[in-house]
Amino acid sequence: DGRMGLVWDGENAQFSSRARVKFNLSGETDSGLSFGGSFRVDQENYNNEIDEGGNSNESNRSAARGTAGSVYISGTFGKLSMGDVVSAAEAAIGDLTELGYTSGEFAANPEEIDFLTGDGENEEQGPTALYEYTFNGVNLFASMTDGSRRDCGAGNVTYGTLGCYEFDEDDDTDVAFSLAAGYEFGAYNVALAYSENGDGREIVIGGTAAINEFKIKGFYADYDDRDLGQLGDFEFDFDDNADTFEVDYDRAYGLSVEYAMANGVGIQGLWIRREVEILEAFADGAEDAYDAYGIGASYDLGAGATLAGAIIKNEIFADNETRADVGIKFQF
Amino acid sequence: DGRMGLVWDGENAQFSSRARVKFNLSGETDSGLSFGGSFRVDQENYNNEIDEGGNSNESNRSAARGTAGSVYISGTFGKLSMGDVVSAAEAAIGDLTELGYTSGEFAANPEEIDFLTGDGENEEQGPTALYEYTFNGVNLFASMTDGSRRDCGAGNVTYGTLGCYEFDEDDDTDVAFSLAAGYEFGAYNVALAYSENGDGREIVIGGTAAINEFKIKGFYADYDDRDLGQLGDFEFDFDDNADTFEVDYDRAYGLSVEYAMANGVGIQGLWIRREVEILEAFADGAEDAYDAYGIGASYDLGAGATLAGAIIKNEIFADNETRADVGIKFQF
Amino acid sequence: DGRMGLVWDGENAQFSSRARVKFNLSGETDSGLSFGGSFRVDQENYNNEIDEGGNSNESNRSAARGTAGSVYISGTFGKLSMGDVVSAAEAAIGDLTELGYTSGEFAANPEEIDFLTGDGENEEQGPTALYEYTFNGVNLFASMTDGSRRDCGAGNVTYGTLGCYEFDEDDDTDVAFSLAAGYEFGAYNVALAYSENGDGREIVIGGTAAINEFKIKGFYADYDDRDLGQLGDFEFDFDDNADTFEVDYDRAYGLSVEYAMANGVGIQGLWIRREVEILEAFADGAEDAYDAYGIGASYDLGAGATLAGAIIKNEIFADNETRADVGIKFQF
Repeated sequence: DGRMGLVWDGENAQFSSRARVKFNLSGETDSGLSFGGSFRVDQENYNNEIDEGGNSNESNRSAARGTAGSVYISGTFGKLSMGDVVSAAEAAIGDLTELGYTSGEFAANPEEIDFLTGDGENEEQGPTALYEYTFNGVNLFASMTDGSRRDCGAGNVTYGTLGCYEFDEDDDTDVAFSLAAGYEFGAYNVALAYSENGDGREIVIGGTAAINEFKIKGFYADYDDRDLGQLGDFEFDFDDNADTFEVDYDRAYGLSVEYAMANGVGIQGLWIRREVEILEAFADGAEDAYDAYGIGASYDLGAGATLAGAIIKNEIFADNETRADVGIKFQF
Repeated sequence: DGRMGLVWDGENAQFSSRARVKFNLSGETDSGLSFGGSFRVDQENYNNEIDEGGNSNESNRSAARGTAGSVYISGTFGKLSMGDVVSAAEAAIGDLTELGYTSGEFAANPEEIDFLTGDGENEEQGPTALYEYTFNGVNLFASMTDGSRRDCGAGNVTYGTLGCYEFDEDDDTDVAFSLAAGYEFGAYNVALAYSENGDGREIVIGGTAAINEFKIKGFYADYDDRDLGQLGDFEFDFDDNADTFEVDYDRAYGLSVEYAMANGVGIQGLWIRREVEILEAFADGAEDAYDAYGIGASYDLGAGATLAGAIIKNEIFADNETRADVGIKFQF
Repeated sequence: DGRMGLVWDGENAQFSSRARVKFNLSGETDSGLSFGGSFRVDQENYNNEIDEGGNSNESNRSAARGTAGSVYISGTFGKLSMGDVVSAAEAAIGDLTELGYTSGEFAANPEEIDFLTGDGENEEQGPTALYEYTFNGVNLFASMTDGSRRDCGAGNVTYGTLGCYEFDEDDDTDVAFSLAAGYEFGAYNVALAYSENGDGREIVIGGTAAINEFKIKGFYADYDDRDLGQLGDFEFDFDDNADTFEVDYDRAYGLSVEYAMANGVGIQGLWIRREVEILEAFADGAEDAYDAYGIGASYDLGAGATLAGAIIKNEIFADNETRADVGIKFQF
């Protein structure tokens, strides 16, 4: 895929573009099993992730090591995938609607639900396995990691490499897993998921409805014993306070609406709220709910080219600014 | 592409080979706009650049972040590209003739004109945009960066990632831009360009003439307030002096000639001079003009394979050696 | 290719999967010469190697720099390859049979013969050249590096980049080379190889026999003045001793057997012994022979999918554990 355009970061307009290629590989055995794999070229780069503060965290993920991209095998027994797959919860519920030509990236992806497993979490356990099975409109999902934290080498590398096994340096940890079930009836879809990751617990319920030109999606997620350190994109900045304080991620909920006209014009809206529990008394007055909301518009140029733009305000930004993007995105 | 052969580095013969793949992606919208993108596999590697001294400078450029490869959209309005595109000056004038099977790389690329913008300069501003428009033999070019230096993370990283925006850490800088115009008449082509980058100014004039089997190209570049720190491939080594001294890059000019015979044999010649202004009195006697000259021969084997060799003397090398290469290059 | 499955590391079952893509490029000149190149996507990653202990050694190898992947040209004169090619010895003799869905990787690749040149050795000299010529069942092989260690930049980088030549910092070293000859007669094949790398010397003899459903392969390798520092995958751990001691790699020999049934089921067995010479008297009682042996089974599912598993005990592991893998591997 590719994209090019302008991002207003709250203070300046900036150019932003990219070009990527994804490999999709597949085959079918003599007995009718399907198998395949997929990864992007840039997922072969082990030093390719940077955190919210802009630092490279050298996460060292790689499709050639099982920690980016994925492979699968499917048949009448369902579908089994392994690699950097989504959790059962995310497979069943998904994220909210993406806004703008950068798909929400210009405003820290407020459309992404902060699932407790997969999706950037528990990466140090190596590949995740995901199993999916469908019958009569019921979709069942189960995902898990292997419960062995491969702590070999500097820091906490997440190489899936086999040379990396070392008893004394690996930690046994709890298996991180997720279970989910969904039901489709006509234009409606509801799903429920439960996940565990270390001490953290997650219950998420989500649903979608497609009514004429409208597509509506909502979710509610409740977390137990989930500290912020586990969160990926969602970071608070308490620089304004003399003292920082401890918080737990308590719950999140949100809603998105898409409206698609026959002439290729679409309008999208998004609102999400994340609530934290403040664990220290002196900080009781601090903000414990963070909203993000935005509106976007798109125009389908055909052949995979789409003109799109959006305005999003995301309260997790330290400067609390409103950001916007406008540009064109391509599917090759 | 690929290549294999021998390089004489002035003291030893060394093997040198490579294999690369480039993705070229394109599409056309319903209304007739063309769009596309291209990048090489090795441009997905963020740590892939090393400086003249052989150190990795971890420039962290990536097609997936808009700082390597490029995307474009074109129609009756012209062509707009974004990413790691060349400057307007380079788009209009280009470089001199490449010599040898390593395309001049074995002798620090003397065929490359040291353009003030793009081409390895002002990379910390993220993607560059380039606009091109042609009518009646007149070619117009304009390129610019967004004027915002993304100084997030260690050193001065050039990630194009959107998570990297940070008010307090980003510096506003001047927009680096370049404007150029060219005119083609029959087998002749002339072009003029003006560029600004920070305090630096550049005026370049270039021209080509194709006369029978000969193709001749010349250029003259004049720089104002351009310090050597801005230069990419062109670095002086004053180790022989007890005191180093400050210089400005003053001007450069050069000429290349290609002679192509019908039987596939070609001969190429190249001469370029770079002049610096010595800013400190005590160093007045130091060399302020650096020549590079060379001659090459090639033989087209057909199907994209070419046998080629060259001898180049480049005075910017500290040891002032003469280098040579001979080998075969492939286009796949 | 791709694969997914479970590895028993002696203490835990762990998920392990991967997806990779290889580019194979080729052409033919007007005069009938063939040429081509090949490399994998993940070979464009310069920081992609980690040692036995799990540390990234930032070997910085890259197909775009000639130190991963390879290019070739072939005609009636034979075949000349350059890049990260195997040595003449490995080209003539090869390795033993790979076991399990991870091809022996889960147990530190005991099927790999520790050749003295190529194969992870003498990488700091940049690309290796390999020449092959065949007539009347006789196969001749010669490989060499250029004898110039490119020691530019931090550590001992192995960039093949041309900007990296520097007289004062490059070391002249001895050319590492390998010569080998093989002879095929019916279902039998024998080969002999001699190699030099610095002070090290290597003589290897190997042979294969294909008898009905059986395929048998054996080798004997004798080393002179080869210190363990030169070894790649083969590292001893003397943590149990209060004092470490010096050893030389003395010799290795081994045998593998494959049995393939018509119904797609295969069984494989492998045994290899590596002997070291203990150079210090106080350590005379230490173990100086290290065996690795294993057995595997596979089932061909058709279309490039294979179910495979193996159990291997490799005595070079510090904990002396038995490991196993079971999973599915794909060829796309």
